[in-house]
Amino acid sequence: MSTAINTQHIAVDGRRLWQSLMDLAKVGATEKGGNCRLALTDLDRQGRDLVVGWMREAGLEITVDRIGNIFGRRRGADPARASVCTGSHIDTQPTGGRFDGCFGVMAGLEIMRTLQDRGIQTEAPLELAIWTNEEGSRFVPFMMGSSVYCGTLPLDTALATADIDGKLVGDELRRIGYAGEAPVGQCGFGHYLEAHIEQGPILEAENKTIGVVTGSLGMYWYEVTVTGMEAHAGPTPMPLRRDALYASTFLMQEVVNMARDYAPHGRGTVGSVHVHPNSPNVIPGSVTFTVDIRHENAGKLAEMNERLLAGVKALESGLMTGCAMPVQMRQTAYFPPTPFAPELISAVRQQARALGYSNMDIVTGAGHDAVVIAAQLPTAMIFVPCKDGISHNEIEDADPAHLEAGANVLLGAMLNSAGIAA
Amino acid sequence: MSTAINTQHIAVDGRRLWQSLMDLAKVGATEKGGNCRLALTDLDRQGRDLVVGWMREAGLEITVDRIGNIFGRRRGADPARASVCTGSHIDTQPTGGRFDGCFGVMAGLEIMRTLQDRGIQTEAPLELAIWTNEEGSRFVPFMMGSSVYCGTLPLDTALATADIDGKLVGDELRRIGYAGEAPVGQCGFGHYLEAHIEQGPILEAENKTIGVVTGSLGMYWYEVTVTGMEAHAGPTPMPLRRDALYASTFLMQEVVNMARDYAPHGRGTVGSVHVHPNSPNVIPGSVTFTVDIRHENAGKLAEMNERLLAGVKALESGLMTGCAMPVQMRQTAYFPPTPFAPELISAVRQQARALGYSNMDIVTGAGHDAVVIAAQLPTAMIFVPCKDGISHNEIEDADPAHLEAGANVLLGAMLNSAGIAA
Repeated sequence: MSTAINTQHIAVDGRRLWQSLMDLAKVGATEKGGNCRLALTDLDRQGRDLVVGWMREAGLEITVDRIGNIFGRRRGADPARASVCTGSHIDTQPTGGRFDGCFGVMAGLEIMRTLQDRGIQTEAPLELAIWTNEEGSRFVPFMMGSSVYCGTLPLDTALATADIDGKLVGDELRRIGYAGEAPVGQCGFGHYLEAHIEQGPILEAENKTIGVVTGSLGMYWYEVTVTGMEAHAGPTPMPLRRDALYASTFLMQEVVNMARDYAPHGRGTVGSVHVHPNSPNVIPGSVTFTVDIRHENAGKLAEMNERLLAGVKALESGLMTGCAMPVQMRQTAYFPPTPFAPELISAVRQQARALGYSNMDIVTGAGHDAVVIAAQLPTAMIFVPCKDGISHNEIEDADPAHLEAGANVLLGAMLNSAGIAA
Repeated sequence: MSTAINTQHIAVDGRRLWQSLMDLAKVGATEKGGNCRLALTDLDRQGRDLVVGWMREAGLEITVDRIGNIFGRRRGADPARASVCTGSHIDTQPTGGRFDGCFGVMAGLEIMRTLQDRGIQTEAPLELAIWTNEEGSRFVPFMMGSSVYCGTLPLDTALATADIDGKLVGDELRRIGYAGEAPVGQCGFGHYLEAHIEQGPILEAENKTIGVVTGSLGMYWYEVTVTGMEAHAGPTPMPLRRDALYASTFLMQEVVNMARDYAPHGRGTVGSVHVHPNSPNVIPGSVTFTVDIRHENAGKLAEMNERLLAGVKALESGLMTGCAMPVQMRQTAYFPPTPFAPELISAVRQQARALGYSNMDIVTGAGHDAVVIAAQLPTAMIFVPCKDGISHNEIEDADPAHLEAGANVLLGAMLNSAGIAA
């Protein structure tokens, strides 16, 4: 391994980075200034073709694997060393923005271009990855390409996944020319680093340029159904009611209150509610709602989960509201907290400091390819602010100076891992 | 006016009453044992024809007014006296029961039959009314026939009301042969009495046969929208959230808590909730929900309304939840409390006691034709229990003995008002 190096004199071209982002954003541009470039559509092909062309111009060797992940390799002085990989995705939400995913890919491209311009060779090879279908908007699940790469989603399952029109991932990959021949998961990365917009409001609120991402929140998802007794709102006196909504509100509040008690890394959200029969003059007979609790620490997340289950028991027994009511609870998802690699986190933090960018540690609450990959090899992420914390939205926006800063920190961290050849 | 009379020796035929209810229930019978006989459909015509035939056989003179209300008149010894009217409706909800409305009409019919069998003439004329479209399931608003009769809904407006297929009340009345020629609202009633199933759980819970209805609850309806900030559930820390659902739950609870504080006649219901965007991992950006508050006392209802408005202000200012949030509030309905006529209430109570039926005072929380009519002339209602308090449901059920008791109380109260001719 190389020793830590001073990379302050090597910097990306922020204007070129911005221009490439804007050029890519023309493919599938929406009227409101966003992007619609759903995975494996003609527009995704156009986007892939454009970026692959840029990658070749930057001297990268292109490989496409069987799930359509694209890898652009830059040779190192020591080909035996595991490569240092960066990347993200260029598919978008149906009403997505110009930066989610694309920034990570364009930042990696800009780094390859910068190294090419300067004639710098690294010890270890470098790699730029474009992961297939990160968003999961057209084909569920999300983070498909990286999940197949990491072996958590079988290739055959992914290829047989259908969109709403019954079109299959495998057929669509062939149709757009990205059904590669490379076996999946054999690229031999040593480290993975990903730059991304934060998709949250913290960096902006704290007025920081760089988020040093220390890991991702773990998460439980539940669907909860509280069953009361449907009855006329007029003739039914209060003591004879079994109002499923009134009961549910106590558990809804508990989800939020609990997350507040687990500050700063607890999250608690009831995002979706269905009331039956949902008529103004009928006392709700049943209410179904989702619960989403998150924490970065596995022990704390388990505690939150226990407290949630205790809340459900208290509701069911009548302790919470004074009226016992059946509660059904179905776990719909679980992801453990994923800490990132301490040595890479340190490298990111050190680069941000060395370059004079204000920075703070942060955890990612959203899912990213890096979170999937972190279970397999040393991984870290670099966040930059997005305007008003808004993402998955056509008005998603970011400051060119922040994007440039993020790319410079990524460059430094990659060089730190790969080492510069003599 | 006649003096109070002993009517204990005159009793209806409970078996005939039950049989007529069951015969009527065959028209539009549903598989689950309920009834679907929507206003002004072919089935409504069949039901009307059947009952009008029975009314004629019971010696009643039939009149149909321009909104299709049917009146069957039994002459009194003194034709100059205002008539004593009873009645209800025979249209049903789409998945309605066999008793809602039908009991009131069949009880009135059974009384006419009983008087005919016994050759009893009253001083004042008696009248049996079948009101058009009480349910409002096909044509909105509900209580259409009685509202036009009382002048609170213009005839032309009612006739021009369209169903979901664009068919008009006026055309449908002609089509089924019930576009009568009698001017609306000129039947010259002196008193109005209506028997009905309770449509609530109180009588059953209190184990009483007869509910002496003292009036109807007044009611405010609102649609409330709380606006927060839609954001990702993962990356958004709790202190930076503006969760519209969390905020809304406090006002939802206040609606119920307030009604409990105004026991026993307060009611508070949030029946309908719409969350936007209603996605498990998105913090709700806005929540729209209905508020229904009721009380029998106008002053108490006004207090409840003030407290609700204060709650909205507290939510808006952040006093309630610690986070200020815009709240829009739209009043969608208001009905004042409607007390029934004291002398008729007394007569009903006295009849129930004289006949040895357990009884209690009760207010109606549901709307009835009698509530509309009570604004115009002395009115009272008689409730009998319905099984589990369930109504507007195919499993709606009632005890034949209770129905017989209700009809006997109605008979006594009508004779008390009309007087028996020497």
